[in-house]
Amino acid sequence: MKHTLPNFRIAIVGAGAIGLYYGGKLAHFGRDVHFLLRRDYAVVRQRGLRLRSKGENIHLPKVQAHRSTEEIGPCDLVIVAVKATSNSELPSLIAPLLGSETIILTLQNGLGNEEFLAQHFGAERILGGICFICLNRTAPGVVERFDSGRLALGEFSGYPRPRLHDIAWEFKRCGVVCSVVADLARERWRKLIWNIPFNGLSVAAGGIDTAAILADEGLCRLAVELMDETIAIAKACGQNVPTALAPEELKRTKAMGEFKPSTLIDYLAGRALEIEPIWGEPLRRGREAGLESPRLEMLYRLLVALDRGPRK
Amino acid sequence: MKHTLPNFRIAIVGAGAIGLYYGGKLAHFGRDVHFLLRRDYAVVRQRGLRLRSKGENIHLPKVQAHRSTEEIGPCDLVIVAVKATSNSELPSLIAPLLGSETIILTLQNGLGNEEFLAQHFGAERILGGICFICLNRTAPGVVERFDSGRLALGEFSGYPRPRLHDIAWEFKRCGVVCSVVADLARERWRKLIWNIPFNGLSVAAGGIDTAAILADEGLCRLAVELMDETIAIAKACGQNVPTALAPEELKRTKAMGEFKPSTLIDYLAGRALEIEPIWGEPLRRGREAGLESPRLEMLYRLLVALDRGPRK
Repeated sequence: MKHTLPNFRIAIVGAGAIGLYYGGKLAHFGRDVHFLLRRDYAVVRQRGLRLRSKGENIHLPKVQAHRSTEEIGPCDLVIVAVKATSNSELPSLIAPLLGSETIILTLQNGLGNEEFLAQHFGAERILGGICFICLNRTAPGVVERFDSGRLALGEFSGYPRPRLHDIAWEFKRCGVVCSVVADLARERWRKLIWNIPFNGLSVAAGGIDTAAILADEGLCRLAVELMDETIAIAKACGQNVPTALAPEELKRTKAMGEFKPSTLIDYLAGRALEIEPIWGEPLRRGREAGLESPRLEMLYRLLVALDRGPRK
Repeated sequence: MKHTLPNFRIAIVGAGAIGLYYGGKLAHFGRDVHFLLRRDYAVVRQRGLRLRSKGENIHLPKVQAHRSTEEIGPCDLVIVAVKATSNSELPSLIAPLLGSETIILTLQNGLGNEEFLAQHFGAERILGGICFICLNRTAPGVVERFDSGRLALGEFSGYPRPRLHDIAWEFKRCGVVCSVVADLARERWRKLIWNIPFNGLSVAAGGIDTAAILADEGLCRLAVELMDETIAIAKACGQNVPTALAPEELKRTKAMGEFKPSTLIDYLAGRALEIEPIWGEPLRRGREAGLESPRLEMLYRLLVALDRGPRK
């Protein structure tokens, strides 16, 4: 397949922690990666990109940084990693990157992003990736990783095709723990079971990290109840997710240490929160399935109000 | 009765908005009122006390201000208006004010305060008052009132006795809208039906006033659901409260304008929040009655976390 050739062009749209990290890994191993950069443009041009974790300290002194997608031009793979709050910009941002066979892979959080892209660019070319990874962009052009991380890739519609396996293989070759999943939606729910309580409570409980949530008995119990409500919705939507996930999730969260979920980082930075894909859409799907989810609903409403501010 | 005589001595313990206002009204009409003051002592000594509202502009240039209850000595009536978060100080604060027939009237918020005082000083002498009033202490020694206000007085144990009617009469003579209620507990629940949603959401939704809560559709619906959960607990506890209170409560709240509930004021000032009497105790009584109250429980847990905070 074309993308195993050296001239397989990759565009990264949305250069927060996720975009910089996965783009950086691909670039580090010699792939032809083009970053669309805004706030980090000058710094990355000057000092390059750094990816750090316990076992990793990558410095890419030169990356292909661009200020517009027109400048990048058509690519074979477009990796979308903008916040869902910017989705309305995607149709015009992505258009210049498209050839007839361009594949679009969204690594965005939550539900509804594949549907949005499919609506604008056709379902055929859409892939989704779920990043089970703790990343923080700690400075312009610097990304820190706090866990081993795992990327799950799936087709938006239908069963995994060869192209999906090929792209997964690209990631693996570049040192990313990556797997192909037969059911993308199931994996999205699997991640929401963590994001809904921990991203949500980190903001609603006043701007605290995951260690502070775990240290508070009441919040910890609330996190478990929110997981249970999310699992009930996933099951009502036909997803085969395990029922008793809480102990495993709490253990995994403990191992993260004082981790700041992306929503907390957005909140502390005064940026718009990704409320609809993480809380709004799951809540609506639960309602459509006839479920009441009082805690998820309350969390959603509080986050909407907090997003409008005037806290801080 | 003794207290209708000019030498009926009244002590005000806790000089926030409530203590300053009711003590000020009694003093303004010539009663022998002694204030225990801390943060406002110097200002009140110098400039006196001001009570303001649309129809009222009272200035008491000289009030009997004290720094300790030893200095005040035995009184006929002790009015308790400290935050419940300071209840542990009350036994030693109140002791010097007590004679054999001293009556203790608590104007504190929520559930459990009469019980606490009864435990330390005997149930016989305990009265409770519920302040259906919007007051803010806007500056040291200055209290503003935002509504017509109403004080409901009741016996902690048993039916209203003559002393209760006499004290209510004292308040009425001094221009306070005051009534005697046969069932103090019912009135406490009646007030909690408002305090639980509005005091709670004003903090949990980021530090916003009642007008901002009403302007947010999601929060407004959440407020109604919290009212319904509170009403269900009150009924399960044998209180005869009306079921469909929400429309009336919302209308009343709208009339308050941009009102800051006391919990919001405490929160914005970085003071401890009165969580147990307003949310914790009602929640526990609901549990004892076998009720689940998911929204009240979630609100309680979030407030406990916010109170520890590092928000702000």
